[in-house]
Amino acid sequence: MLRTGETICAPATSGGGAIAVIRVSGSQSISICGKIFFPSEARIKLSEQKGYSIVYGEIRSGEEIIDDVLISIFRSPHSYTGEDSIEISCHASRYVQQKILELLIKNGAVPAQPGEFTRRAFLNGKMDLSQAEAVADLIASESQMAHRIAINQMRGAFSDEIRILRADLLHFASLIELELDFGEEDVEFADRKKLVELVSKVLSITEELTSSFSLGNAVKYGVPVAIAGNPNTGKSTLLNLLLREERAIVSDIPGTTRDAIEDTAVINGIQYRFTDTAGLRNTVDIVENLGIKKTQEKIGSASVILLVADVNEGYPALDEALNKVREMIQGKEKKLIILVNKSDIDIHGKRSDILDMLTLKQDEILLFISAKTGDGIEELKEKLGEVMDHGKLDSENVIITNVRHYEALSQVTESLKRVEEGLESNLQEDLIAIDIRQAIHYLGEITGEITTDEILGNIFKNFCIGK
Amino acid sequence: MLRTGETICAPATSGGGAIAVIRVSGSQSISICGKIFFPSEARIKLSEQKGYSIVYGEIRSGEEIIDDVLISIFRSPHSYTGEDSIEISCHASRYVQQKILELLIKNGAVPAQPGEFTRRAFLNGKMDLSQAEAVADLIASESQMAHRIAINQMRGAFSDEIRILRADLLHFASLIELELDFGEEDVEFADRKKLVELVSKVLSITEELTSSFSLGNAVKYGVPVAIAGNPNTGKSTLLNLLLREERAIVSDIPGTTRDAIEDTAVINGIQYRFTDTAGLRNTVDIVENLGIKKTQEKIGSASVILLVADVNEGYPALDEALNKVREMIQGKEKKLIILVNKSDIDIHGKRSDILDMLTLKQDEILLFISAKTGDGIEELKEKLGEVMDHGKLDSENVIITNVRHYEALSQVTESLKRVEEGLESNLQEDLIAIDIRQAIHYLGEITGEITTDEILGNIFKNFCIGK
Repeated sequence: MLRTGETICAPATSGGGAIAVIRVSGSQSISICGKIFFPSEARIKLSEQKGYSIVYGEIRSGEEIIDDVLISIFRSPHSYTGEDSIEISCHASRYVQQKILELLIKNGAVPAQPGEFTRRAFLNGKMDLSQAEAVADLIASESQMAHRIAINQMRGAFSDEIRILRADLLHFASLIELELDFGEEDVEFADRKKLVELVSKVLSITEELTSSFSLGNAVKYGVPVAIAGNPNTGKSTLLNLLLREERAIVSDIPGTTRDAIEDTAVINGIQYRFTDTAGLRNTVDIVENLGIKKTQEKIGSASVILLVADVNEGYPALDEALNKVREMIQGKEKKLIILVNKSDIDIHGKRSDILDMLTLKQDEILLFISAKTGDGIEELKEKLGEVMDHGKLDSENVIITNVRHYEALSQVTESLKRVEEGLESNLQEDLIAIDIRQAIHYLGEITGEITTDEILGNIFKNFCIGK
Repeated sequence: MLRTGETICAPATSGGGAIAVIRVSGSQSISICGKIFFPSEARIKLSEQKGYSIVYGEIRSGEEIIDDVLISIFRSPHSYTGEDSIEISCHASRYVQQKILELLIKNGAVPAQPGEFTRRAFLNGKMDLSQAEAVADLIASESQMAHRIAINQMRGAFSDEIRILRADLLHFASLIELELDFGEEDVEFADRKKLVELVSKVLSITEELTSSFSLGNAVKYGVPVAIAGNPNTGKSTLLNLLLREERAIVSDIPGTTRDAIEDTAVINGIQYRFTDTAGLRNTVDIVENLGIKKTQEKIGSASVILLVADVNEGYPALDEALNKVREMIQGKEKKLIILVNKSDIDIHGKRSDILDMLTLKQDEILLFISAKTGDGIEELKEKLGEVMDHGKLDSENVIITNVRHYEALSQVTESLKRVEEGLESNLQEDLIAIDIRQAIHYLGEITGEITTDEILGNIFKNFCIGK
């Protein structure tokens, strides 16, 4: 799999648009491009160009002119991959892109595998592994918060934290191992008290990091929100209202139309994934009962449930629906927001009935809204934000979003808990040392100080081509 | 609509991929970008950078880092638009792109309209109008031939031809108008014989160009091919075979998946649009009769009809289907290729029957093929190519593909025919001059030497954003 001797090439942009960029990286980049590129000023030689410069000219295939292009030149080590690199900016024609790739390959380049550019950047020491993973997260980020977490990670905030913990543990591990070398002389290089403190400090940090994962995951992939409620309570109107807001600017960027399987919206910097559920009414109708089963599934996988009721149906209808939802989410960590809709046309004055009779359980939220007029929607958005623990997101806290990091940190926590127990029960140094080494190992896996081809393969196979 | 004082910005790439490029053009490009971009080396100042250079750094919104980007700088007049321009190469995150565009707009740029970059290139004399139109054609080109025509046009082959004709006509027009000035003195500055020759020369060229339009149009949009024939003759197998070939490389380029409404394939550098038709059998079934009507429509709009028959059904079935197709295309200029399929399993020896009994009409082609084994498919592809008059495409001939050019050239032809008649019938100079001026006007419209805001609006509104 390692083939750093090869020069790789791939399209770095998507098919549509006005221009396309093709990336080439490797020691032969400049000489390969030199064979197919003809500068508009004949005196210019690609091989003599400095890094961070651009040359205008033609790509030719024999006599045939393929395109007028701009060539950006990057010289090792001052490039993304750390190798000599070229970016070819051409017209976004399928034919042109295909032809340029063919020409590059014909002249000695090989097609890049997914993530191979970033993999090379990692192998050449341009970034560590968690930074490399953040590149993919950054590209995928669709909301302010997902972006913020990714860019912090890309810039090394998380890696720095891990590296400090690891260095501390390494220090103590060496002292303990030194003691083992002096085995029978009964010297104590490592201060037991300090070790206990250190382990406890590292543990509190790893536990905090692992506990940030569910938040990080929700931010990265979007917070799943189920909209439940009886038919005709205005669920769809509410959904449309929530979706409408933030779409205007995005639609200017070509290619941003997404599939309609799930509706997502970014509200106050956080992405939410909304699913409308079928009704909640019990019925003898088999088809409708299937609907209820589906509702149950959707509510089961949501973090937030919006229960929509019609104010005019009064307390009994709300109570019935509420009890069903409560039953579905019992014992699970889910936020329930009860929305009494159509509050602008409360003709029978049912609002006060509801206020009188409804008893909210802990953490349940009740809002009177009108999806038609927009009343109460701002408050709803605020409440949605509160679910997400904005405080944590706004501060400089490191949030983990990556399941690989989560698993490694869980292993670190487990190992260090064994160290803690061992220290308490005066376990032998050599056994304690094994657990410290294990914690060190897993911390090293996160940043890539320790790595295997398998880990790398798993990480980069999910990257897009050209990155 | 003209707002050359403004600095415009737009995404130049499509939404997916690894990186995205945002374009900025106008006198304020560099100063606007300077407000949001922070070079990684603090000593570097964007405003002091030379054209055709690249700077690495961060885009920031206040304290928040939006992305690590590469900034390419182009200085007037050495840019695509002719103005100072910047290209920002960022990560292809929706959020990042949106944020950068917002920042640019907040700092004084305005969102570019479709084609506005190219429109500015035209207004600043970087290219003429037919070259500008070729840019859009180049981006859309999916086959070698469509690409070749577009790039020839972009490089000015067509414009040069038009400009020479126009200059010649202008010369004569001025001489004739000089005569009019000397009205009563009866001098003759313009050599009538030479004028007759010139008009005849220009006419033959414009007529050749207009006659190339149907070919150019087919190359640009793909040659429509209808596959007809009775059910179970192997139409779908044949279609799949024709489509399968050239897809492998293309699928490596992200975003190139096309909708499946129509199947297109590039064969020997030319794109074909294949439609499978329903059967040809007459029936009392209403639904099937609707099928026949649709078949008729599809055949009606195709340039080539592939009639597929099963060799085992023998001559009578082929004859029946053939007569129906012949009836549908009678009097129309369509190419009919008869494909006797399943020739590899001609168990009853029906092939010789068919050869004995079938009488081909002029220009009809008969091929024995096997869509299953691929026998005869190469020959079929060759025949498809012949339909397209490869000779014309291979040579340096100028082919027109643009309906605007076609219409203008038709007007030129009409005007010059009136000039020809006028010269024959010794019409007054002033009347002849009007028609020559009209021809000159239409030739000027093609290259944009004469233009109106309406013409420009119509041309550029169909461009993509960012071009």
